[in-house]
Amino acid sequence: NVNKGSMNGAGNLMDFLDEPFPDVSTYEDFHTIDWLREKSRDTDRHRKITSKSKESLWELIKSLLDAWSGWVVMLLIGLLSGTLAGVIDLAVDWMTDLKEGVCLSAFWYSHEQCCWTSNETTFDDRDKCPQWQKWAELMTGHAEVELPAFTGSGAYVLNYFLYILWALLFSFLAVSLVRVFAPYACGSGIPEIKTILSGFIIRGYLGKWTLLIKTVTLVLAVSSGLSLGKEGPLVHVACCCGNLFCSLFSKYSKNEGKRREVLSAAAAAGVSVAFGAPIGGVLFSLEEVSYYFPLKTLWRSFFAALVAAFTLRSINPFGNSRLVLFYVEYHTPWYMAELVPFILLGVFGGLWGTLFIRANIAWCRRRKTTQLGKYPVLEVIAVTGITALLAYPNPYTRRSTSELISELFNDCGALESSQLCDYVNNPNMSRPVDDIPDRPAGPGVYNALWQLTLALIFKIVITIFTFGMKIPSGLFIPSMAVGAIAGRIVGIAVEQMAYHHHDWIIFKNWCRPGADCVTPGLYAMVGAAACLGGVTRMTVSLVVIMFELTGGLEYIVPLMAAAVTSKWVADAFGKEGIYESHILLNGYPYLDVRDEFTHRTLATDVMRPRRNDPPLAVLTQDSTTVEDVETLIKDTDYNGFPVVVSRESERLIGFVQRRDLTLAIKNARQKQDGVVSSSVVYFTEDAPQLPASNPQPLKLRRILNLSPFTVTDHTPMETVVDIFRKLGLRQCLVTRSGRLLGIITKKDVLRHMAQMMNQDPESIMFN
Amino acid sequence: NVNKGSMNGAGNLMDFLDEPFPDVSTYEDFHTIDWLREKSRDTDRHRKITSKSKESLWELIKSLLDAWSGWVVMLLIGLLSGTLAGVIDLAVDWMTDLKEGVCLSAFWYSHEQCCWTSNETTFDDRDKCPQWQKWAELMTGHAEVELPAFTGSGAYVLNYFLYILWALLFSFLAVSLVRVFAPYACGSGIPEIKTILSGFIIRGYLGKWTLLIKTVTLVLAVSSGLSLGKEGPLVHVACCCGNLFCSLFSKYSKNEGKRREVLSAAAAAGVSVAFGAPIGGVLFSLEEVSYYFPLKTLWRSFFAALVAAFTLRSINPFGNSRLVLFYVEYHTPWYMAELVPFILLGVFGGLWGTLFIRANIAWCRRRKTTQLGKYPVLEVIAVTGITALLAYPNPYTRRSTSELISELFNDCGALESSQLCDYVNNPNMSRPVDDIPDRPAGPGVYNALWQLTLALIFKIVITIFTFGMKIPSGLFIPSMAVGAIAGRIVGIAVEQMAYHHHDWIIFKNWCRPGADCVTPGLYAMVGAAACLGGVTRMTVSLVVIMFELTGGLEYIVPLMAAAVTSKWVADAFGKEGIYESHILLNGYPYLDVRDEFTHRTLATDVMRPRRNDPPLAVLTQDSTTVEDVETLIKDTDYNGFPVVVSRESERLIGFVQRRDLTLAIKNARQKQDGVVSSSVVYFTEDAPQLPASNPQPLKLRRILNLSPFTVTDHTPMETVVDIFRKLGLRQCLVTRSGRLLGIITKKDVLRHMAQMMNQDPESIMFN
Repeated sequence: NVNKGSMNGAGNLMDFLDEPFPDVSTYEDFHTIDWLREKSRDTDRHRKITSKSKESLWELIKSLLDAWSGWVVMLLIGLLSGTLAGVIDLAVDWMTDLKEGVCLSAFWYSHEQCCWTSNETTFDDRDKCPQWQKWAELMTGHAEVELPAFTGSGAYVLNYFLYILWALLFSFLAVSLVRVFAPYACGSGIPEIKTILSGFIIRGYLGKWTLLIKTVTLVLAVSSGLSLGKEGPLVHVACCCGNLFCSLFSKYSKNEGKRREVLSAAAAAGVSVAFGAPIGGVLFSLEEVSYYFPLKTLWRSFFAALVAAFTLRSINPFGNSRLVLFYVEYHTPWYMAELVPFILLGVFGGLWGTLFIRANIAWCRRRKTTQLGKYPVLEVIAVTGITALLAYPNPYTRRSTSELISELFNDCGALESSQLCDYVNNPNMSRPVDDIPDRPAGPGVYNALWQLTLALIFKIVITIFTFGMKIPSGLFIPSMAVGAIAGRIVGIAVEQMAYHHHDWIIFKNWCRPGADCVTPGLYAMVGAAACLGGVTRMTVSLVVIMFELTGGLEYIVPLMAAAVTSKWVADAFGKEGIYESHILLNGYPYLDVRDEFTHRTLATDVMRPRRNDPPLAVLTQDSTTVEDVETLIKDTDYNGFPVVVSRESERLIGFVQRRDLTLAIKNARQKQDGVVSSSVVYFTEDAPQLPASNPQPLKLRRILNLSPFTVTDHTPMETVVDIFRKLGLRQCLVTRSGRLLGIITKKDVLRHMAQMMNQDPESIMFN
Repeated sequence: NVNKGSMNGAGNLMDFLDEPFPDVSTYEDFHTIDWLREKSRDTDRHRKITSKSKESLWELIKSLLDAWSGWVVMLLIGLLSGTLAGVIDLAVDWMTDLKEGVCLSAFWYSHEQCCWTSNETTFDDRDKCPQWQKWAELMTGHAEVELPAFTGSGAYVLNYFLYILWALLFSFLAVSLVRVFAPYACGSGIPEIKTILSGFIIRGYLGKWTLLIKTVTLVLAVSSGLSLGKEGPLVHVACCCGNLFCSLFSKYSKNEGKRREVLSAAAAAGVSVAFGAPIGGVLFSLEEVSYYFPLKTLWRSFFAALVAAFTLRSINPFGNSRLVLFYVEYHTPWYMAELVPFILLGVFGGLWGTLFIRANIAWCRRRKTTQLGKYPVLEVIAVTGITALLAYPNPYTRRSTSELISELFNDCGALESSQLCDYVNNPNMSRPVDDIPDRPAGPGVYNALWQLTLALIFKIVITIFTFGMKIPSGLFIPSMAVGAIAGRIVGIAVEQMAYHHHDWIIFKNWCRPGADCVTPGLYAMVGAAACLGGVTRMTVSLVVIMFELTGGLEYIVPLMAAAVTSKWVADAFGKEGIYESHILLNGYPYLDVRDEFTHRTLATDVMRPRRNDPPLAVLTQDSTTVEDVETLIKDTDYNGFPVVVSRESERLIGFVQRRDLTLAIKNARQKQDGVVSSSVVYFTEDAPQLPASNPQPLKLRRILNLSPFTVTDHTPMETVVDIFRKLGLRQCLVTRSGRLLGIITKKDVLRHMAQMMNQDPESIMFN
């Protein structure tokens, strides 16, 4: 008798309603899902399959396929997102170079591929191969003479002009495609994905068109030379892949809760290919984007992330069998005293994070509220023009940001031909690569320092205006670039200080003359971690991603010191990272798991109806007519109504969803004879005793949720918030000694939290 | 007015009760904590400190110290557990060698240290240095002649005898110390730590004595040569450190919820030093042992794990600047076709896991229920004797298990002098180390294969009887040893097959003659991962730990394939891993987050009172006398009582803890005049109107929890289980239309789950 009575459970009623109206989806757009209900529906489905599987061999096979479908989806996500990442990398590489010139032997070769295949003789000449021609050279036959910036020859000016033209073309294409075909393809996508994973519905955000257009426009946007990265959008692309493959299996396509498990794993795969860091990707998904992350998802995310990483590796877009351009291995240890500059870089990262978030949010709010927002194409064109105009003269901003980061991270080996490695007495190749002692900086390094400083200011300013435009734009790469530039500058300064002042007390112990004690590349990496941490407030995942970018465990401590400092400094100015700020800006109903709610309010302070409000809209179990219900549905826009024994006793018996009620009455009016406007709707188990003259009553107990979630009016709000978070509720009823007093919805909770934090409660827009 | 009225919240009442009886702790031994209450108490404490911090500078400093105490505790845990791990490593090294001989130059040197300092001339002679003397040599002056096993000379027999004697001495000391000083120091500790972290109280389990005795006896137990490892117990040791440092800060010592956050991080530090894998440690804590793991804990765990790893590295117990003996770097890639043997190893691991768990649980149950359990010392002595007797003749079981694993993992380089690397045509050192082609096996390899097979059978059998004895014993190392032996055997077989059959279709594509295509060491590592996975059912953390033991990302796929297969095979025979099995065996109230509850039962089927039971013990809000309450407390052993408006209406108004009730009445009887047995206890806001002749009433509203957790009787049990898990409840009240029907405790839930899985519900012993 343990199994009796569950026909009335919340799970089953869906079957009845889903089948007659297959085209009506369970949740409306821009609404919040009910996690408990989704879970219970999935358990029901699972039970049905398990019990059927004993009936025949075919059913058994079907149940096995169902059990395996999760792994199949993960495999497909890994394969597709790895492939897309590889294609994007290759295309960006080619199109970035196309702005400067073309390969004569095969126009689809990028600069490096072109020169690599044409001559492999000497390493230094790699960049000057006859097959690769700049546009001016190709058109006029005259090679450009490399002159100081802003004084260029005719060929220089022509190249400059064509560079800007290509950039404008790319960005115009990008913004137009986004506007015409998939408006959701713009931005980084991570704020929205966080919101979706927390249980919000945004139809089409992860659709096929978004996937296609985002992939294409991402290539265009990155190639146009704007200060943006492909890492954040890759997470969006991977989640679109996840959503696409969900539709193959009804287990995932019909259950919003299960679908989100897949999306969490897809986000991990996205970060995995963006940074070549599968473990970091899983931790990113866990720490940063996911909301409900069952342990099963952890394992599957890891699988998807690995498949994606290996798919990308087999495509090998950079020709070095690494997954990212800026993979480095350092060989010299760091010293305790270096923690001081590392922590200073952390402080810089925190300040940058605060500045960026405040300025960017202010600019985005201006875009939302003023005329500016009405001309997105013009805005993109203008920013691209300014970016290209200012970027071209400086060699550090002209190239792609990934290449810049890669050069800044790299230690100066004997083979390095970069300006940054122009040290006096550059030893020849007779010495091993990883043991070059500290040396005085040559003129190239001083020149590079100036250019880097200009690049730093330029990047800081332009990134603020770029992030949030109507094109795909990630901010991992620009943030990392800012940090890497600052870090490299600090690194060179410390190195030169150590070289010139061997006798200072702080250098005496670890930096003998002729020793290789300071690695400026490591400073660049630490700076990049600090700036990224300041903007996103990632912690463990940041350190693990950076760890996977470097050789060994050795360098975790500097990275961690910088990440911790940067987070503390940035948190001191404001708790929200850039993604949470954008969520707030857009008014999404996101209940952050990390915000501690510490106020002393009670459920009674938050519930509605407030004092002086009209009483709560309720149904009674056996005295409401069909007409009453229809009026109530018409007059209100609530998502559901509590059902009470009677208006006098106010004793709660259940909760009925607006959608179920509408469908049930529509259905009954069409198919059930005798149901008219004056029919009594009853939710009790047995029909009420009515005179024979009355019209036939309508029994609706099957759509009644008999286990609505309740709290008492004295429950502290911190507990209520905890319950909403952990159980993923949409609404919760408030009672006192069994009497129904009111209702608290997720929106009420969010508004109350905003109010307590002195924010505008009306900014929470959706329910 | 939002802040009004919260004085009645559940959080505040504690302050009132805690202060007069400081020696009474909040929870009794072997009881479950209430996570929501702990959380709410901590928020209260935090609020108090925040509001006080505005009063004076001193209070501000105190509040800052409080905010930083979490990081301080983590730092201390990392330092102490890293140090202890280093000391344990050094001591085990020395004492393991002490069984065979002694260093003449300094008796506290282990064999390797002794020979390393005495001569560094040739690498081959390292094991044969004059300073290190075996016991027989020292006592008789005659060196042992190495003869085939079981035919030994006099010196051999003497060494054999002394080896057994030392082993017996060590294990006798270990078991005696455990029995006399700290009975909780036995076993691996992980099942109990899982239970404690899920919210159970076991006083003294993480105490100072346990820490001290476990550290000492762990060294003795490992040195005695028994088939056990130090990895699991290190987690226990680290958790003891965590508990120790909790007592320094009232924030952690007085709040069982906060304390568990620290313990989760300590577990991560423990695994970090056990395997030299900080990221793996954090994931182990997250996946395997922790229950509530807020994101803040993730970051702190990572910090503690890193500090512990760096402390251990600075101690450098193995002299190779690695954290574990069996760190390896492979240089040859693996090939797709090798996945077949890897998956076979996974199947072996799964079967081993099933066999081990079933056999070990059967044996432990026998120990619990028969006479066997009464002679733990004798049991340990007997098993040690048998182990030493059988282990000595075989060189692979004579040495410590870590060394064995290390040798099996290692690839045969040119410098390797091991029997396992005795290949024909061993090339000289002229070739680089990492490019030795596949070669035919020499007689040494065949000899080693036989000895390894014997060692495998021996380890499989003896580990079953060893794990669970009354000494500290981990099973990571024995499991890994079983897998490594099996893996190495398979690896050598594949290697020889590939060498002798280059023309077979499966080898043709990737294994040309003279190429180095099969790495037997990698097979050993894959086998170790598979066996460890089969026993513990770890997934992500297992792969990440193994990843941190090897050089690169390259080898994750084989490890993952084996881990997945092993988990699936083992899960097919039974869902529980060894730790869950031991939890079940001991009847701890552990609500596994991973078990899916899929039955169709409702809350009404589980709640008490059952049909035919006496009615629920309740208090009324204004009609119970002090005497009634005292009788109720005396007659029942419930942890708390629901309070209703009246017995007729049965409308619930709150829940009162047994302990609070007892204390409040005791307090009132002592201090409050006029409170006698016939005084009315009232829980309403205003005193009831009583005739003047009646004794003074006792107002107890302040100890009433006005927000007890309720569900309706129609709530599906899957939802109830979910709520218990996610919110960490102790009990939940069941109502129907506002009327109180019954109560469900955590024990009821566990019993119901056991019943549904056809297990004995009476095995759940604690509440």
